[in-house]
Amino acid sequence: MITENQYFDGNVKSLGYETTEGKSTVGIINPGEYTFGTAQKEIMYVIEGELEALLPESADWQIIKAGDKFEVPANTSFKVKATVQTAYLCQYR
Amino acid sequence: MITENQYFDGNVKSLGYETTEGKSTVGIINPGEYTFGTAQKEIMYVIEGELEALLPESADWQIIKAGDKFEVPANTSFKVKATVQTAYLCQYR
Repeated sequence: MITENQYFDGNVKSLGYETTEGKSTVGIINPGEYTFGTAQKEIMYVIEGELEALLPESADWQIIKAGDKFEVPANTSFKVKATVQTAYLCQYR
Repeated sequence: MITENQYFDGNVKSLGYETTEGKSTVGIINPGEYTFGTAQKEIMYVIEGELEALLPESADWQIIKAGDKFEVPANTSFKVKATVQTAYLCQYR
């Protein structure tokens, strides 16, 4: 089954699937700034485009380019900013 | 705008977006075998999972693992097979 998800009035959309190692999603983030909460640990890869991320317990935004990733622990929140439509892979592991 | 697409009774779903270099989609392919037609040149990257592809004018299936890609010219068709849910990036360039 391929699940369809959308957040922030359709400005973030994703498709969910299962792997042998856990659930993953691929999605698109429209330009803007968003706060996401985590229920599980998330490993986020930028596929195309670019994000800025403000991670928990970090004072500074970091730039994540295509091919790069960042990790967020469970039960916290983080912010991302996009200036172009950006594709991502999120692994829940 | 993030466009939502589905094919083959929902066994392939994708999300479309624009980049400065052209349109792209990220999507998921359920296990199975599918024939796709191309209107434009397509560059297909496997993000997670694995595909087998039978490209135009090729007699043999090739395996495309996560991180690998293949290209398909405009106005032809190709086949893919998946044995696990597989995430891909398709660049129309």
